[in-house]
Amino acid sequence: MDRRFSCPLKGGIETVVSFASDLEDLAKGIEEYGSNVLLVCDENTERYLFPSLPSIVLPSGEENKRLDSIEKILDKAFESGLGRDSLFVAIGGGVICDMTAFAASVYMRGARAVLVPTTLLSMVDASLGGKSGVDYGMVKNGVGTFFPSEEVIISIDTLNTLSEREYLCGVGEVVKHAFLSSDEKLFSFMKENRDKVLSRERETMERMVDLSLKVKMEFITKDPEEKKGIRSFLNLGHTFAHALEGVMSYSISHGEAVAWGVGRALECGVEMGITKKECYEASSSLLSLYPFSLGYRVEDPDLYLSIMHSDKKKSKGSVKFVLLEDMGKPMLTSVDDSLVRRLVEL
Amino acid sequence: MDRRFSCPLKGGIETVVSFASDLEDLAKGIEEYGSNVLLVCDENTERYLFPSLPSIVLPSGEENKRLDSIEKILDKAFESGLGRDSLFVAIGGGVICDMTAFAASVYMRGARAVLVPTTLLSMVDASLGGKSGVDYGMVKNGVGTFFPSEEVIISIDTLNTLSEREYLCGVGEVVKHAFLSSDEKLFSFMKENRDKVLSRERETMERMVDLSLKVKMEFITKDPEEKKGIRSFLNLGHTFAHALEGVMSYSISHGEAVAWGVGRALECGVEMGITKKECYEASSSLLSLYPFSLGYRVEDPDLYLSIMHSDKKKSKGSVKFVLLEDMGKPMLTSVDDSLVRRLVEL
Repeated sequence: MDRRFSCPLKGGIETVVSFASDLEDLAKGIEEYGSNVLLVCDENTERYLFPSLPSIVLPSGEENKRLDSIEKILDKAFESGLGRDSLFVAIGGGVICDMTAFAASVYMRGARAVLVPTTLLSMVDASLGGKSGVDYGMVKNGVGTFFPSEEVIISIDTLNTLSEREYLCGVGEVVKHAFLSSDEKLFSFMKENRDKVLSRERETMERMVDLSLKVKMEFITKDPEEKKGIRSFLNLGHTFAHALEGVMSYSISHGEAVAWGVGRALECGVEMGITKKECYEASSSLLSLYPFSLGYRVEDPDLYLSIMHSDKKKSKGSVKFVLLEDMGKPMLTSVDDSLVRRLVEL
Repeated sequence: MDRRFSCPLKGGIETVVSFASDLEDLAKGIEEYGSNVLLVCDENTERYLFPSLPSIVLPSGEENKRLDSIEKILDKAFESGLGRDSLFVAIGGGVICDMTAFAASVYMRGARAVLVPTTLLSMVDASLGGKSGVDYGMVKNGVGTFFPSEEVIISIDTLNTLSEREYLCGVGEVVKHAFLSSDEKLFSFMKENRDKVLSRERETMERMVDLSLKVKMEFITKDPEEKKGIRSFLNLGHTFAHALEGVMSYSISHGEAVAWGVGRALECGVEMGITKKECYEASSSLLSLYPFSLGYRVEDPDLYLSIMHSDKKKSKGSVKFVLLEDMGKPMLTSVDDSLVRRLVEL
């Protein structure tokens, strides 16, 4: 296990990010936590379980990211007689990581969480930053807590089992980070290593995850609880994306929605005269280098707008959008409903 | 509104404690929060609602302190279109305060909470300290968060509507604080003002609540998240009490259970040679000055012990009890099951 870096979060708590050298190393790492643990996974990651430890297998998919599933985790924890000092270990994608951390955060008013993200999207997004939660009604992540995990273990080998579509979802989030980074490292890396990224070359993936996490860390560290408006820059494309997910009843994956949302945010910035032409061109060209599905169109823009207005990234009654002035220069602004409508329907 | 003191809590957040001069002053205080609020109350406190503000009336009673009720609060908040910066205002006893704070803590990963405790027990116990939650299965407060409210408004006049039994529950908790205090102020006050306390003389009640809150604050401030073992001293009598509540399916009130539990903890301390004889005598004499129902006996001690062992005040597998060495000198220790059995059955 390679202890790579440590990210300061809410209340001065640090999340340690480690990279496992292979699946065996991952297994060894988990075993070292001892017996005071609850492993949480879904059908896709059941293979990584240990028969000797208390565990629960949840149904996979965003449609199961609900309070019901949290109750299942809590039931299992109580049944297993776990104390407040026990460790909830998530092994899975963003849904499993978010829910496990949420359950840990409310179990006896706060147990401990370790996340083992097994999808690219969860490695670069959900695993770091202390956001936990479930969807509520049509509101994505409407209910949850800020609850930093003690450790994030990245095991690159778990990415080999992902479908092409799942993998690409994560790449979408990485590209978003490339646009937000204050330096060009990740942007250049993604431009220069397109083929190796898409063929899942092991070292390329590890470097991509590492660079991407560091961009995310930059924003989180300055604003752990999303109270200063800095951390919310990470939501580039997300206001567009969340409403698309809602309107499609979560049948679209988060990563796909984000790649689409970033595209809309870029267009939006150009229309409003906020995004520089060179920035729009450079970012569009990187987006088009990868085979993202950017063609979604919204059939019921009224429903879309009403979901958007119930989004939690709202303050004093108005929804804020993250747009880019230039690479690494995000800003927050309101956008007219009529412009949103024009950008998403067509 | 008389801003009395401010209690530093988790993450450096401060809870301001204010005393309303009368019910009109309370109403004015709530109105000043503006319209971005959700008022939460039960049938008993419905009378304090404002027709103009979003509100929800929950069924009263510990048996309704469940996740279902949290969902009702969250549903109402989403329906009302409240943002993350909105205020959840609890008007009620401990159940309403604990649940409102819990709902606020998970709404969009954390809205804001203001508590208006309307029972003596909640004024001196639930309102200050940032503990939120619901019962889960048979585990009292098994699920919740640490989430300090921004403000606690004490309105002594609300105590006039309490039944004799409800009022006395709160007095039990005050007496517990008297035993834990590092000075004798509260102990002497409760000894000397017995009749005025029981006849609910306004100024006496206000002084009693003020002194009691200050004792509680002493312990919380040193250990906001109950991680150093100091705050847990406030649980004097609670390990005995929670299991009694569980075994009686919460048909006994928390305050009654605590008065009973404090009695058991004193006896337990004497049996184990921990509690000084003078301390036992002085505290027993104060307990007997008030008409507490201390005569409960447990019929099924096996069930009682099994509930006790699932209590969350557990670390490294063993349940810890708070016992008194002397007035103001609590300590934590394990107690043999056989002694617990002897103290509660009979």
